[in-house]
Amino acid sequence: MLIGKACRILGRVRCCVVKPLASLSLSSNMAKSKFEYVRNFETDDTCLRNCYIVVRLDGRNFHRFAEQHKFTKPNDNRALGLMSRSARSVMEELEDIVIAYGQSDEFSFVFKRSSTWFKRRASKLMTHVASQFSSSYVFYWKEFFLDQPILYPPSFDGRVILYPSNRNLRDYLSWRQADCHINNLYNTVFWTLVQRGGMTTAQAEDRLKGTLAADKNEILFSEFDINYNNESDLHRKGTTLIWEKRDETVIKRMKSPDEEEKHVIRSRRRVQAHHCDIIGEQFWEEHPDILEDDNS
Amino acid sequence: MLIGKACRILGRVRCCVVKPLASLSLSSNMAKSKFEYVRNFETDDTCLRNCYIVVRLDGRNFHRFAEQHKFTKPNDNRALGLMSRSARSVMEELEDIVIAYGQSDEFSFVFKRSSTWFKRRASKLMTHVASQFSSSYVFYWKEFFLDQPILYPPSFDGRVILYPSNRNLRDYLSWRQADCHINNLYNTVFWTLVQRGGMTTAQAEDRLKGTLAADKNEILFSEFDINYNNESDLHRKGTTLIWEKRDETVIKRMKSPDEEEKHVIRSRRRVQAHHCDIIGEQFWEEHPDILEDDNS
Amino acid sequence: MLIGKACRILGRVRCCVVKPLASLSLSSNMAKSKFEYVRNFETDDTCLRNCYIVVRLDGRNFHRFAEQHKFTKPNDNRALGLMSRSARSVMEELEDIVIAYGQSDEFSFVFKRSSTWFKRRASKLMTHVASQFSSSYVFYWKEFFLDQPILYPPSFDGRVILYPSNRNLRDYLSWRQADCHINNLYNTVFWTLVQRGGMTTAQAEDRLKGTLAADKNEILFSEFDINYNNESDLHRKGTTLIWEKRDETVIKRMKSPDEEEKHVIRSRRRVQAHHCDIIGEQFWEEHPDILEDDNS
Amino acid sequence: MLIGKACRILGRVRCCVVKPLASLSLSSNMAKSKFEYVRNFETDDTCLRNCYIVVRLDGRNFHRFAEQHKFTKPNDNRALGLMSRSARSVMEELEDIVIAYGQSDEFSFVFKRSSTWFKRRASKLMTHVASQFSSSYVFYWKEFFLDQPILYPPSFDGRVILYPSNRNLRDYLSWRQADCHINNLYNTVFWTLVQRGGMTTAQAEDRLKGTLAADKNEILFSEFDINYNNESDLHRKGTTLIWEKRDETVIKRMKSPDEEEKHVIRSRRRVQAHHCDIIGEQFWEEHPDILEDDNS
Repeated sequence: MLIGKACRILGRVRCCVVKPLASLSLSSNMAKSKFEYVRNFETDDTCLRNCYIVVRLDGRNFHRFAEQHKFTKPNDNRALGLMSRSARSVMEELEDIVIAYGQSDEFSFVFKRSSTWFKRRASKLMTHVASQFSSSYVFYWKEFFLDQPILYPPSFDGRVILYPSNRNLRDYLSWRQADCHINNLYNTVFWTLVQRGGMTTAQAEDRLKGTLAADKNEILFSEFDINYNNESDLHRKGTTLIWEKRDETVIKRMKSPDEEEKHVIRSRRRVQAHHCDIIGEQFWEEHPDILEDDNS
Repeated sequence: MLIGKACRILGRVRCCVVKPLASLSLSSNMAKSKFEYVRNFETDDTCLRNCYIVVRLDGRNFHRFAEQHKFTKPNDNRALGLMSRSARSVMEELEDIVIAYGQSDEFSFVFKRSSTWFKRRASKLMTHVASQFSSSYVFYWKEFFLDQPILYPPSFDGRVILYPSNRNLRDYLSWRQADCHINNLYNTVFWTLVQRGGMTTAQAEDRLKGTLAADKNEILFSEFDINYNNESDLHRKGTTLIWEKRDETVIKRMKSPDEEEKHVIRSRRRVQAHHCDIIGEQFWEEHPDILEDDNS
Repeated sequence: MLIGKACRILGRVRCCVVKPLASLSLSSNMAKSKFEYVRNFETDDTCLRNCYIVVRLDGRNFHRFAEQHKFTKPNDNRALGLMSRSARSVMEELEDIVIAYGQSDEFSFVFKRSSTWFKRRASKLMTHVASQFSSSYVFYWKEFFLDQPILYPPSFDGRVILYPSNRNLRDYLSWRQADCHINNLYNTVFWTLVQRGGMTTAQAEDRLKGTLAADKNEILFSEFDINYNNESDLHRKGTTLIWEKRDETVIKRMKSPDEEEKHVIRSRRRVQAHHCDIIGEQFWEEHPDILEDDNS
Repeated sequence: MLIGKACRILGRVRCCVVKPLASLSLSSNMAKSKFEYVRNFETDDTCLRNCYIVVRLDGRNFHRFAEQHKFTKPNDNRALGLMSRSARSVMEELEDIVIAYGQSDEFSFVFKRSSTWFKRRASKLMTHVASQFSSSYVFYWKEFFLDQPILYPPSFDGRVILYPSNRNLRDYLSWRQADCHINNLYNTVFWTLVQRGGMTTAQAEDRLKGTLAADKNEILFSEFDINYNNESDLHRKGTTLIWEKRDETVIKRMKSPDEEEKHVIRSRRRVQAHHCDIIGEQFWEEHPDILEDDNS
């Protein structure tokens, strides 16, 4: 890093000049309070109360990132695992996140309606999530890609969306999972046509133009003997992270004179991953604690 | 990662059932459009035109992060270097940033008034900056801390502030630099009292209670023979990053038959670091291209 | 109205100059498109979907307005009637308002959750309500104050508040009605002490300092033989406006040759005023159509 | 106004029940604080500092209002006078408005950059302007329309727009005046073709389809001997209201024993109307106090 010439000269001149040390500092102190009015330009972006706060992250230029890091097609399990690991890191830092859902290079985090994290300030919430996710992505890279190095720091952009009712929130999550399904079905057929059917990507694209989901299932089934429904849940359903209580047996050494050991059963909250349908009722019936009552 | 039992059962059941493949997919397609209304809950947070957009990042719990990674006191040059490196990474990704200023665990990025990056959407701008900075921080860690590993992924939160005039923007930057000066003077005296004066931190805190800048300068000068103005510019002034044009001599091999080499002088924009006063006029007179005319 | 000298001269000069008529107009046309960029400075203030939109108006300097128009104390029924009449005028213009509640010099209007009036733009909604209410207030003045003229145009300011759930909305309305109760009890005792007890306003204020509601009821009951609960519902409960269906018998003259008359029963929506408790369940059970289901 | 039966019964029941008076009131007091949380749903809409705040009002359904009140075509001087009078009423109430510009059924009000009225809260500013304007419109109606009664209360909607620089603000005002010019030229030709040329409105519309400003000027000049530039400044330029200082001679009766009269010259700010070009430099050079320096 170079330091501009003018500045260095300026610095030198200053040191030579014999001036009362106090005056500079005093004026600097006064200067600060003189400038402090600029704080009033900050605006309040508090999220409306009693709404679910969703922060969604999307990878930036991840097509290029996937190319350069040779992600396998149509899905790279290492990359998906790293996304989930980073999302877990976010949840562990921000405990008011009650559910997170991810697929491909995106992840959505849902703060509970009554959350008061960062006084519900949208900018704080989304930048913290984006930051924690991104630093975790690089930090945990080697756990998933082992000896393959990460070539440059990736980035994700984020947004905040508010949902006033349980229905709206569930529809949001359903929308993302339906999107996962549609994209994964397309990608599965596309890459099967290319990798096993010997087509060029242009030919595969052409073949799929205008086809409905039914047609795509049919291609897989009749031409490649693949039943799409037998494909991996991870790829078809994406990843849902929630908090779950686990009973753990902990050995506690007592501070009493005889140093007796005690087995204590402790309940601990842990982030658990699911790869199941979250559009239907079953998931929500099995996890009634995720949503808060609309009229509470 | 565990997969909930119910989900796996659900998955299995589904595969067993012999049902027309199409129906599931079709309904999934319809489902997506049925859910798509949730997009309308997104709000527009476009930044007012013709204002400077400032994104400021602040380290979260960096006191603890500094402790755990044994940052030297009062300033750790490795940590400051890593901050600047990460900020440079942000500037190289987002070319509309005309100036950035950092000190301690904070960095401010200024987008030019006329910028249309991300259609000036505040959420996109601040999350992208926060994300790129954070992933870079982990990515470049080893360049500054060499064999000392990073223990966990750090995070930064961000905010957006708009400034309508050059005066307002300069006052913002002056405010941050005055803050740098005040904090650094305090920290310099504090840690000198502890490290060289043999005081406990409590004693040092006590000694400095109620002192003015002049008193602090005096302590340094009379007790430790330190002229504060001779201390490092990096610590006293923080780091200012701007774009600068450099002439570079490039050797170009011609594609002509004789493969002649040619020396070409090319002008290239590069991010340069300065550690100088940005409160006064001189810096701005020397770099007239940073600010746009108020009335353009 | 005076016209500035310079302008008139300018105008005259223009008329004298013989110049091709087209050029001025053409340049004016071009000018408009040149200036049109200023539209992009407008920001979008769409209200979050699926929330009740409440617009509350408050009289500005109504203490003075009441003084100058000699409103009776503690309540002026003409003034309250005019407030309700103006509120009805607002509801008749903006049919998506499902309930309105007023007391003293304030009125709250509740748009249904699913409303798309003005594309849910907050600024349009609140200014339209404020404008319609204010013009109606002057327009209908003489229906309530008869020969007493209005001395100057009054004004009201407004705000928009969003409520995501039925519970929140009902709590908002309960808050306003509880406020009505508390103020009216205070005012009733205060003016009884002055008007019937012969106290000065300062003495009455002093007497009431620190008293609880129970004390105030007791003063009314034991000193003036007034049971507060027998006071007018209008004053104790404020005014609630809702839409109600009425069957109306309409005489329709047929266009057929014999000009026969027909009595037709037609159902018509009309704004109806209530002065009852809206904190408890009964009102809402009797009018189940006001609120929409939280999870619709 | 009818009172719902249930409510009256409810009221009656309450009065009959012999219950300790205190309990109701106490619970009502507690109730209020229980409900008060709903205040936290209000959001802050403070306008960015150091920007001009423009509130623009537009008449709602004024086509119909003009029809029903038989406004003359293409311009009704009574209606334009009433608009200006109402705007003046707004300026006299809100002294931080430095300039207002109106044409047709719209009026724009510009608050000075440094204004702190209503703490710069957008909702307060725009609703107050909309309210004061609307009540004034009805209040002053009879001064302009004399014996012709106003048939129903009109309404205006409003919006807030921020402009960070003098150039932006002037371009906004230029945009409105260019709009005035274009509309007035069209309307002048259109109604001349109808009223003097004997065309139907459909024929006139057809005749003007695709014509440029030059063509319209030519039609007026060659067919009706009208030089558009000689038309009324009020119609071609709209109305600009600004504050101007006037010296006034005031007769002051002294309170001294001899009751002597004294002539005192006092400087008073008054709202003055101009109908001149505000696109060019001249107007702004002649009134240098309207705008504040961009870099102050």
